Amino acid sequence: MEYRTVSLFIIGTELTRGIIADGHGQLMARELSQIGYHINRIVIVPDDGTLGEVLRQCLQESDIVILTGGLGPTSDDMTRSLIASIAGVPLVQDEQSYKDLYARIGERIHGANQRQVYFPEGFHPIINPKGTAPGFTGVIPVVKQGEPCSVLCFAMPGPPVEMHEMFYHRILPELATLAGHDGDGRDEYSCFLIPESKLEDACAHVATEGIVWGTRVQEHRISLYLSGGEADARGRMIEGMERMLGTGLISSGDIEAVDILSRYLQEHHLTVSCAESCTGGYVSKLLTDRPGSSQWFWGGAVTYSNEAKVRQLNVDQTTLDLHGAVSSACVEEMARGMLSASGTDLAIAISGIAGPDGGSIEKPVGLVWFGFAAKDKMASSIAVRFSSYGRASVRRRAAVAALLLAFFYANGSDLLDMVQSWQYI
Amino acid sequence: MEYRTVSLFIIGTELTRGIIADGHGQLMARELSQIGYHINRIVIVPDDGTLGEVLRQCLQESDIVILTGGLGPTSDDMTRSLIASIAGVPLVQDEQSYKDLYARIGERIHGANQRQVYFPEGFHPIINPKGTAPGFTGVIPVVKQGEPCSVLCFAMPGPPVEMHEMFYHRILPELATLAGHDGDGRDEYSCFLIPESKLEDACAHVATEGIVWGTRVQEHRISLYLSGGEADARGRMIEGMERMLGTGLISSGDIEAVDILSRYLQEHHLTVSCAESCTGGYVSKLLTDRPGSSQWFWGGAVTYSNEAKVRQLNVDQTTLDLHGAVSSACVEEMARGMLSASGTDLAIAISGIAGPDGGSIEKPVGLVWFGFAAKDKMASSIAVRFSSYGRASVRRRAAVAALLLAFFYANGSDLLDMVQSWQYI
Repeated sequence: MEYRTVSLFIIGTELTRGIIADGHGQLMARELSQIGYHINRIVIVPDDGTLGEVLRQCLQESDIVILTGGLGPTSDDMTRSLIASIAGVPLVQDEQSYKDLYARIGERIHGANQRQVYFPEGFHPIINPKGTAPGFTGVIPVVKQGEPCSVLCFAMPGPPVEMHEMFYHRILPELATLAGHDGDGRDEYSCFLIPESKLEDACAHVATEGIVWGTRVQEHRISLYLSGGEADARGRMIEGMERMLGTGLISSGDIEAVDILSRYLQEHHLTVSCAESCTGGYVSKLLTDRPGSSQWFWGGAVTYSNEAKVRQLNVDQTTLDLHGAVSSACVEEMARGMLSASGTDLAIAISGIAGPDGGSIEKPVGLVWFGFAAKDKMASSIAVRFSSYGRASVRRRAAVAALLLAFFYANGSDLLDMVQSWQYI
Repeated sequence: MEYRTVSLFIIGTELTRGIIADGHGQLMARELSQIGYHINRIVIVPDDGTLGEVLRQCLQESDIVILTGGLGPTSDDMTRSLIASIAGVPLVQDEQSYKDLYARIGERIHGANQRQVYFPEGFHPIINPKGTAPGFTGVIPVVKQGEPCSVLCFAMPGPPVEMHEMFYHRILPELATLAGHDGDGRDEYSCFLIPESKLEDACAHVATEGIVWGTRVQEHRISLYLSGGEADARGRMIEGMERMLGTGLISSGDIEAVDILSRYLQEHHLTVSCAESCTGGYVSKLLTDRPGSSQWFWGGAVTYSNEAKVRQLNVDQTTLDLHGAVSSACVEEMARGMLSASGTDLAIAISGIAGPDGGSIEKPVGLVWFGFAAKDKMASSIAVRFSSYGRASVRRRAAVAALLLAFFYANGSDLLDMVQSWQYI
């Protein structure tokens, strides 16, 4: 049978009370539309169990139903019992899920948490790498116009980090295959520092026939998925996008900027330290998010005030007086000072105007200087002027740029050539 | 009759294709929830006329239905004929609306535009000051459980500028009056370090009749909303929850932990510096997320390696050898070293086992020591053992705890009493 029409159910009382906005509905609608599905409705309902009637009715009009939310341990989470009731099967405990959850939370599994490893009989759990509640998938038998048939059902937890992981890595690939998009003909890229609208424009401009793309905006990058067409054609599409958008901003695979740097450091047995002004600890935080970072991260200095730059990094007061803290001279001194204080192989320095105040005509909000120093290598510095979409955005993009530029400095790329090619920063 | 339950319908194929995000659903849900309405669903459907079935079914479960979209002159706009069909009445032209539209667009009224001044018989147009398509309102007769009754219906155009004008100036005031609610009986709290399930349990345990609660999980806290009941009863509910959950973990209002500390620093004209090991820059990042933080944040040291603790903070190598980096002695030396290096009024130090590796029986993953030093005040330290839900979670909770504990240290609270009261960390 053909699966074509999809109904989306988003469950959460915080949504129907308007406390938060739903993002899941649009995300799934966009991705599924792009691979040819028709979304006949997106239904947002409270956690109160009243979903039953509208879900039953949708089963008559849809081939696939996807639900998010209502899987957690709290009293108002009821997705699993509702689906079991509609499918006419009991809830049964899944042994592997029980073992996995026990390994994760131990004796706390007893009580409310244990409900998370019960699923409608005949359904299969979907592993949740980011949380305690697995999702599940299975088939609901229905009678449509007198004919028995079945509706494919997927249920995911509501928290975005868990739902995204499950949707992009498990459900979307399965539905892409079902829709006739060959699972092999799909590439994933990670795009840094490029605004979503410009990435979309570039995709539309260079895409050739048969290639379908989808994007997923994450905190520190945008994931880009290409499917359809020949592998060579997809590769040429990425080359074309790099010519439009800039060098070094698109990496193959599912990778964060911090991992591009840390992988290089580990391969070359190098250590790094970090001196931060405007990012105020953001880069160090990203580096130490990674387990095992003590192998290659020594530590750093958050030299937010000028006094801290002088005292902790030995920046010359005259440099600050003559050039200011946001300058080539200052970030190079910061990087050399950090290298010397730490004895690491590589040191990163960042100083900029994050805003909202502190900008001037010469040094506007969004201007950030990056400095790098390494043993047996000339120190180097480069400025990037980020479009100002607000303080948080400038800081976030500066932190990502610092990680990418540190990698390029370490591997000997020309930073000036690279940054000059960046079109929409 | 009482009007209490509302269904919202948002019509637009650009929404079900995920091309744009819906904002109307959340906006109406928030405003109507606050005046006491219960939103039983928000349904987003394409412009293709398939809304009929789900709308008919909602009429059985709702007292009020509000629709946006599907009122314009293009061929796929079908809200007015659908409502007429469901209400069992013809569409009739409204003379005043015709005159108004003629005055606005002249002869262009003929053709498709003229449909915009037809409404279901017995319904009333709602003037649209921002566009050509008026909205309309009326009553749909239905039979519920054998009894004849009526559902109140409002339809608005989809473009936000038109919809907002009509909703805020016409429909919301009408529904507020109908509900007889003044919207005063609602309090907001910010809850730190408490797992969602425990917060729910505590709410359920101490809630008294008439008090309704809702929670919203955010990155660094959970917002708790209480409504209904007397203000005194809601206050006693929070006191009861504090007795169950611990002291200092629930703050009144919509506030982050970083703002609790920074507000205190600003009020007392104090400066702070921060020495971080396991949090690796996270606390400094949170402090510098705030515009104007240079007024009270000097900077800090990310002393991730032991060598960094010795070199940057003057921690005694003997302390590290005897007690290890995750110890009372080490964090107190870190805090004193940071205070002395920076000259700030207050210094925060954090050292712990974030995992996944590095734990032992004596010092398990999740154990974090916090140290504090201030001018003219004894240094102090306190350990918290966080349940391990993974490295990211331990680091996130340790950063929030550091900010809260720094505030309590600064204002003279007993840290040991406080931490010992925390039940579910």
